[in-house]
Amino acid sequence: MGFPHKHLIDISEYSADEIMQLLKTAESFKEVNERRIKQVPTLKGATIVNMFNEPSTRTRSSFEIAEKRLSANSLNFGGSSTSSVKGESLSDTVETLCSYKIDMIIVRDKHAGVPRKIADLSGVHVIDAGDGKHQHPTQALLDLYSIWEHKGSFEGLNVGVVGDISHSRVCGSLIPALKIMGANVCVIAPPTLIPANVEVLGADSVTSDFDSVLPDLDAVYMLRVQRERMEGAPFPSLREYNMMFGLTQQRDRLMKPDAIICHPGPINRGVELDSFMADHPDRSVILDQVYAGILVRMAALYLLLGGSEDGITA
Amino acid sequence: MGFPHKHLIDISEYSADEIMQLLKTAESFKEVNERRIKQVPTLKGATIVNMFNEPSTRTRSSFEIAEKRLSANSLNFGGSSTSSVKGESLSDTVETLCSYKIDMIIVRDKHAGVPRKIADLSGVHVIDAGDGKHQHPTQALLDLYSIWEHKGSFEGLNVGVVGDISHSRVCGSLIPALKIMGANVCVIAPPTLIPANVEVLGADSVTSDFDSVLPDLDAVYMLRVQRERMEGAPFPSLREYNMMFGLTQQRDRLMKPDAIICHPGPINRGVELDSFMADHPDRSVILDQVYAGILVRMAALYLLLGGSEDGITA
Amino acid sequence: MGFPHKHLIDISEYSADEIMQLLKTAESFKEVNERRIKQVPTLKGATIVNMFNEPSTRTRSSFEIAEKRLSANSLNFGGSSTSSVKGESLSDTVETLCSYKIDMIIVRDKHAGVPRKIADLSGVHVIDAGDGKHQHPTQALLDLYSIWEHKGSFEGLNVGVVGDISHSRVCGSLIPALKIMGANVCVIAPPTLIPANVEVLGADSVTSDFDSVLPDLDAVYMLRVQRERMEGAPFPSLREYNMMFGLTQQRDRLMKPDAIICHPGPINRGVELDSFMADHPDRSVILDQVYAGILVRMAALYLLLGGSEDGITA
Repeated sequence: MGFPHKHLIDISEYSADEIMQLLKTAESFKEVNERRIKQVPTLKGATIVNMFNEPSTRTRSSFEIAEKRLSANSLNFGGSSTSSVKGESLSDTVETLCSYKIDMIIVRDKHAGVPRKIADLSGVHVIDAGDGKHQHPTQALLDLYSIWEHKGSFEGLNVGVVGDISHSRVCGSLIPALKIMGANVCVIAPPTLIPANVEVLGADSVTSDFDSVLPDLDAVYMLRVQRERMEGAPFPSLREYNMMFGLTQQRDRLMKPDAIICHPGPINRGVELDSFMADHPDRSVILDQVYAGILVRMAALYLLLGGSEDGITA
Repeated sequence: MGFPHKHLIDISEYSADEIMQLLKTAESFKEVNERRIKQVPTLKGATIVNMFNEPSTRTRSSFEIAEKRLSANSLNFGGSSTSSVKGESLSDTVETLCSYKIDMIIVRDKHAGVPRKIADLSGVHVIDAGDGKHQHPTQALLDLYSIWEHKGSFEGLNVGVVGDISHSRVCGSLIPALKIMGANVCVIAPPTLIPANVEVLGADSVTSDFDSVLPDLDAVYMLRVQRERMEGAPFPSLREYNMMFGLTQQRDRLMKPDAIICHPGPINRGVELDSFMADHPDRSVILDQVYAGILVRMAALYLLLGGSEDGITA
Repeated sequence: MGFPHKHLIDISEYSADEIMQLLKTAESFKEVNERRIKQVPTLKGATIVNMFNEPSTRTRSSFEIAEKRLSANSLNFGGSSTSSVKGESLSDTVETLCSYKIDMIIVRDKHAGVPRKIADLSGVHVIDAGDGKHQHPTQALLDLYSIWEHKGSFEGLNVGVVGDISHSRVCGSLIPALKIMGANVCVIAPPTLIPANVEVLGADSVTSDFDSVLPDLDAVYMLRVQRERMEGAPFPSLREYNMMFGLTQQRDRLMKPDAIICHPGPINRGVELDSFMADHPDRSVILDQVYAGILVRMAALYLLLGGSEDGITA
């Protein structure tokens, strides 16, 4: 009945059953989001701190809506960096926050490992909302949700993750999560954008030849190109990137009839994804992923804060 | 029973009856704002996005208070410009927002036409909170409310709109709205600050001789001078502007005994309005306009979101 | 039954009985903060404006949490300076806010006297959240609360206030408040950091010899060093400051066995306070002070807004 985790930081610590419990709880929140009064009193009286030390319009908005639809009290805190507020140590900042009698910290930071450190320092629940290039577990969960919603299961599913693996925190959670759920993961990237630890992430195969593997994929996960880092060194031009690793209209006919297209947003149209594919009525699940973000965040807040019929047990 | 509009973008699309329904609904919300518990559950569970892509302390605050007093969930979104969030298109931003299952977008943007574009792109209700120099319909409604409150009707009322017509988005909604309601509108401005389209806005007459028309006016609407644009080119000096187009204490005796003074705020005291007139106990309705802002915004939220006894029907 | 004050601006206007009523009310709110649903409907429908014209993460967060736990509607307003919003006068800004039918303004400003001016201009309740180097009454109340909680009473208590008296707004409220409650106050500071008005604040004695008075103190209140102002002129070095006026581990043995350590936060570890002392399990009440901040702010909101069983009477 209870949920065995206090935090959502490293998706690798979650079992397939626990992830499936999260996805099913997320699904159960669809009903709340689709009725007229999109709010339940579940987390009324809980205080959740959104500590975003890096700007993040989408992820922050999604968490804020999830919190409000569960009637929690949200406190937006932070701005620049956790490591120094008026020269104060991260530890002192966290202890101060905890003295407010809060229930949870949602943390986004440019430094990998900050969410774990906060969890160790504080007595409260922590959700990693993205730390450096390390993890972004609620992103992985919403990706899983959308794939599950459209494919029904993960067992034996072929998922391709395409693009800038080096600069993506999405991969750090997504690839391990897909492996936990039993999917096969193929990484497709230019040689210059494949990090040394791709094997550590657990991908089954790595290639730079998109077209050779595309016909086998059930889900094609296109990563956002960090444009400012692409011009010059790692790749000759955005145009050439689009030709070799972009999901172009020409590649549509190489895909399985029922293969789907995912993207974490925001999209660079014409770079990693052509508009034809981004807006493909049968294949693109990109907006479903945005909605899934609300659902899985509501589920994570609910399960971590000990949701049961009689409210929360922090 | 229902309200026939989905959006509040162009006041010209509203009939006199519909505007009057809005004003009467606004009046009915006075009771909520004047009791001890200034909050009703009317919009509980609705999600309203305040997308302010231009700073606007007053308009944003007024909408936020209106939303909270109706128990809606507000999400503040944006900051710089709708046209590019991380290089994303406006269309992708709006589709993302709509995937959160929101009910309404309140939009302020420096570019004219953005609210209409958002309405076309999204399936949700849109209120224009000011787009470039184009429209600002809730400002016009609060102005109408204050005039109606003090004058009882619009039919045959002589309203003078004085000042920087060129740089004012207030006029774009106010003048058409006054005409719809049956008032006579006289524009009073220096020749250099009268735009080519003033006839398009529908004013009955235009003059640069303030004193010649002042004795006929029932309501004198003083526009805020955009000080940074006034020094130099369009007018010799602020002092001279004040002499010729400011509502000075000397002009008090030229006014009808029961003529009122309006201003959208914030006031440049000593420029377009002398303190004697801004604080005139019988004539100035400027603070009533601020309060009317809360009332008409509550009314617009309520009517557009389909208010009826059993809550909202988005 | 009622509370005789409309504002909380100058702690010197409060009697010992009134301060004790505040502390006891604060204590009664512990129960709300320590249960699962940390929220009561007491101030539902009240609108409280947080006008922070100076950045202040801690004080603003603490007020925001206090407001939310009492179910008030909070409006964050301001940013740079009250004295000029678009060149508008403070008086016009305040009158505008009051036209929104608000109940209270919490104001932080870099200029001393602004909260009093706002109280005079507006008809609503005002709490000073720190004005220049002048007052910070809720900080003083949370300090009193923590001392009272650990010491049981103030009568005859010896309290040392140590450090940068010149640049501290904390002292402006704390020292008078301690005197009102019957404590003896000793100021300990370098001669260069003692202002001319220290006698006005009411301290019983002043010294630059920390070790000579430390053995008599029941509570040692360490002020935060404004580091940017310390290097150079007023004191040779931070290291020397730490040696002479810092609460170092060596000074532990000079202290009474049951003496406590207070600090307003954030701490400069190794400057005014060594980590050994900041984290001292028996002596340090610094995190209790943070929690007390929530409690006394809830109490101040509640009492000023006329709390009684049937809600608020603004």
